[in-house]
Amino acid sequence: MFNNSFELNKNNINDKVKLNGWVKKSRRMGDLLFFDMRSGEEIVQVVVKPNSSAFEIANKLRSEYVVSVEGIVLLRKNINPKLKTGEIEIEASKIVIINKAKQLPLIVDDETDALEAKRLEYRYLDIRRPINYKNLKYRSKFNKLIRDFFYENDFIEVETPIITKPTIGGAGEFKVISNNHKNKFYSLVQSPQIYKQLLMYGGINKYFQIAKCFRDEDSRADRQLEFTQLDLEMSFTTKEIICSLIDELLMKITNDFKEYKIKEIKQITYKEAIEEYGSDKPDLRFENKIVDLTDILKNTNVEFIQKILDKDVVIKAIYFEKTLSNSALKNISELIKSQGAKNFLWGKINDDGINSSFKDISQEELSQIKKTMNISSEGTILAIIDKKHLALEYLGRIRNIFAQEADMIPKDILAFVWVTNFPLFELSDDQKLISMHNPFTAPLEKDLERFRNQELSTKELLEIDSTAYDIVLNGNEIGGGSIRISNNEDQVKVFKALGMTNEEIKESFGWMLEAQEYGIPTHGGIALGLDRILSILLKTVSIRDVIAFPKTSAGTDDMMKAPIEVK
Amino acid sequence: MFNNSFELNKNNINDKVKLNGWVKKSRRMGDLLFFDMRSGEEIVQVVVKPNSSAFEIANKLRSEYVVSVEGIVLLRKNINPKLKTGEIEIEASKIVIINKAKQLPLIVDDETDALEAKRLEYRYLDIRRPINYKNLKYRSKFNKLIRDFFYENDFIEVETPIITKPTIGGAGEFKVISNNHKNKFYSLVQSPQIYKQLLMYGGINKYFQIAKCFRDEDSRADRQLEFTQLDLEMSFTTKEIICSLIDELLMKITNDFKEYKIKEIKQITYKEAIEEYGSDKPDLRFENKIVDLTDILKNTNVEFIQKILDKDVVIKAIYFEKTLSNSALKNISELIKSQGAKNFLWGKINDDGINSSFKDISQEELSQIKKTMNISSEGTILAIIDKKHLALEYLGRIRNIFAQEADMIPKDILAFVWVTNFPLFELSDDQKLISMHNPFTAPLEKDLERFRNQELSTKELLEIDSTAYDIVLNGNEIGGGSIRISNNEDQVKVFKALGMTNEEIKESFGWMLEAQEYGIPTHGGIALGLDRILSILLKTVSIRDVIAFPKTSAGTDDMMKAPIEVK
Repeated sequence: MFNNSFELNKNNINDKVKLNGWVKKSRRMGDLLFFDMRSGEEIVQVVVKPNSSAFEIANKLRSEYVVSVEGIVLLRKNINPKLKTGEIEIEASKIVIINKAKQLPLIVDDETDALEAKRLEYRYLDIRRPINYKNLKYRSKFNKLIRDFFYENDFIEVETPIITKPTIGGAGEFKVISNNHKNKFYSLVQSPQIYKQLLMYGGINKYFQIAKCFRDEDSRADRQLEFTQLDLEMSFTTKEIICSLIDELLMKITNDFKEYKIKEIKQITYKEAIEEYGSDKPDLRFENKIVDLTDILKNTNVEFIQKILDKDVVIKAIYFEKTLSNSALKNISELIKSQGAKNFLWGKINDDGINSSFKDISQEELSQIKKTMNISSEGTILAIIDKKHLALEYLGRIRNIFAQEADMIPKDILAFVWVTNFPLFELSDDQKLISMHNPFTAPLEKDLERFRNQELSTKELLEIDSTAYDIVLNGNEIGGGSIRISNNEDQVKVFKALGMTNEEIKESFGWMLEAQEYGIPTHGGIALGLDRILSILLKTVSIRDVIAFPKTSAGTDDMMKAPIEVK
Repeated sequence: MFNNSFELNKNNINDKVKLNGWVKKSRRMGDLLFFDMRSGEEIVQVVVKPNSSAFEIANKLRSEYVVSVEGIVLLRKNINPKLKTGEIEIEASKIVIINKAKQLPLIVDDETDALEAKRLEYRYLDIRRPINYKNLKYRSKFNKLIRDFFYENDFIEVETPIITKPTIGGAGEFKVISNNHKNKFYSLVQSPQIYKQLLMYGGINKYFQIAKCFRDEDSRADRQLEFTQLDLEMSFTTKEIICSLIDELLMKITNDFKEYKIKEIKQITYKEAIEEYGSDKPDLRFENKIVDLTDILKNTNVEFIQKILDKDVVIKAIYFEKTLSNSALKNISELIKSQGAKNFLWGKINDDGINSSFKDISQEELSQIKKTMNISSEGTILAIIDKKHLALEYLGRIRNIFAQEADMIPKDILAFVWVTNFPLFELSDDQKLISMHNPFTAPLEKDLERFRNQELSTKELLEIDSTAYDIVLNGNEIGGGSIRISNNEDQVKVFKALGMTNEEIKESFGWMLEAQEYGIPTHGGIALGLDRILSILLKTVSIRDVIAFPKTSAGTDDMMKAPIEVK
């Protein structure tokens, strides 16, 4: 009898409707009473005539009252093109107030003046804002897209445990207390890494999962205590198979977002990424690459460059076809110096020459620079003189900062890039070898012989490349994986390189080494951070905006109030 | 060039294939060498001729070696009708050993002689058994079926937090320690109950989730520390809407299982369930109901019945058209008495009369009993004389035990039944009022007036019915839900009935009571235990068999060894 849907248009004229929802706002116009009624992201206008039996109740309605309205769909006189239902309105014959509302602490609209602290405290009201409703609804669709993709590709979704074994010395891990096991601890799983490898050992050849992961670290703008990961692993696979599968997935996911242009997905090595962009997560929405000017300027007469330039340092530079004001450049200079950079140079270039740090270079040098950097118009050169890895690192940061400041990052581009062949190891702050990806990552084929058959020094181990790969979107690492070690000897060799004793290896991974002796397949996989991908696609300020009930950046729940002391 | 699939049949004759998998077993026949190769649940026979270059390697193969085999598909001479690939075999031209295997601690086959302790310790090998592979694969499909159903019905899947606020006095809750918040605790969510209600407060009108839940209680045969729940909630809903939605879902889920007959899904009230089946989770695969014989036997001459029968007790009885041996009946008697039952009576009935406990009753009494219990053939009467609720409870248990012993429970029936109108409260072991479902459950419409407007005694509160409902399958509670309280006053009244002080209410639920003042909709929902449903449908011994990496019944992980002491 009644149509209960908010999706009403001209085709519904004269339909009887019964709608449940929230009063958005009400107003009088002459004798008539109007109010907008909201459900999810839909809004419908209701009109109440003075002779209607609903008029008395309608008169009492305030914002955010929950009401049930019966009425008839009419053509609207003043069409509202902003609303999907803008051509119609409901003439109410009956209104029931389901619940009243007192004054809300925030405005329920896409634009709200409430600060995030307030929005998180009243998250259940915040998600009434249509933009948040839309984001949560999209997240649901997004998960379905992903799952359907993997089902179509014959993957099995397996639910792996959340309560697991604590890692020895596992910083950043939540410990879990059980009443049934005094003085012992479980932990919350940081990722399904080991479980998915065990699934491969167990013959589940194609596994995926949209999995919850947990890390006990200070939440930063883009981290949460718990986050959601697309996790997958395959047996008898290669990097190429995994990358092309993910490429296909990314095309499918982004297909919903017609507002974006999607660049061809490239693959570059870690070394190339560092050399050309000063970062292992380069933002390829803009092409500008780092070049080396050391050779060109090694005999320069510019005194202050001469003074710095010795055999330990290089000049790395980047060129932008944009200029900034001197004060903006000075800000960048100060920022990067506050981060530890020492010799930051910049010059604006035009037909007349180049100024600032570079103003005294010779015509010959300038013309070689122009040639090397492919400069044919006005713009800015930015450079760092330092040890190579530092010069690249700082210039990588400057690349992002300048592009941002010069407003030259296109907002409508999605630039995915694979960064491959990560080093197997890196040095920790206290100069110990640690895994760059994880200890189960296999060395790259080309380095395997050397890794297996030689006793390598720390310096040599640092030169071993691995099978690890990251997928990067607009300068954000959105996922990473590798081909895993599938034999015992390599695995032990990695553990030892990480400084583990035989006893420590046995205690932590003895059972896993045993598992590897029962006939295991080669395997590899990847994990993608879904919160971050969603946040980028939906252009939200933080990943908190794509999570139903996020924690604050301090890791607290300010709605329910947690954590708390427990007596 | 190569076909990599194990799904091969006569249509693939002469196809070149390259298969990766496990050696199941190898054998020689004359000059030829045969082995079965396994991937997931598929098996293919490989034959190696003595003149093949693969022969030497084939000769080295042992069970559970991982191999890559290249060859050609041939028609098989001796067809194996048990295998999907039984009409073909692969003649190998090349074999590569990917990994060797030492002797496994368990047999990788549907039938294994390994005890469960061994199977859990080596779970990664256990899941190589095709039956376990099949179960995990089905679970993946099952989750997809459920999600697709809710997507089709316009539900939004929302991921709710796992790390949450500890409940005051929350026994059975895992506490979580964070390094960033000394002396404070989070807890693991027991169910998304509060979050899903907040989603309703927030206008997400149709929510569902396949959610992980956590309870820190001794694992019994059918419990795990973490388990998976289908959780849903709707605004502006009714019990009828929810039940018919779930009925539809259950029909869809069970549609895959052609081996079952599905009984029409009935609804009975809690009172009816207790009166007729002595249980709030009756097994309706068999119809036998409990009847009252008190009136018929109140003036009996049978001395020992007379002696027990006073105004406080009743005679509850049940009839089965089956008989058991006296020793089997004696076992039942001893079992139920060991559980606390006092006066257990039984008699076999046939054309000659009735024996045992009932042998001395009069012809008139017997004929009345036959009439009341609708007895027209040989069979057994079982009875308990006790206070009514005890008589019903024990007879409910006897009903299940006898049916089991008499082997009269059809294995091919799925008998779902809704049990509705649960009491709002019950008494705890220490005689305190507790919520029978949860403290957010609304009283039943018919009792609402009384609940709201009167000061009720504990006895009267125990008589208030609620909107809570359970769904039961073959005697197992597989889900439950209710219509929730959606106004502040009722909510406070329930908290107070539960003995909470104003301060306790404010501390635990103050923020929720505030939330209820900002315009909340009426709402209700349900949660279904997916592990248990899967276990019943797949006829596994325990829910552990449908979980990839289950904990033991003691809550330990015997594969990785957890929980552990942490230094």
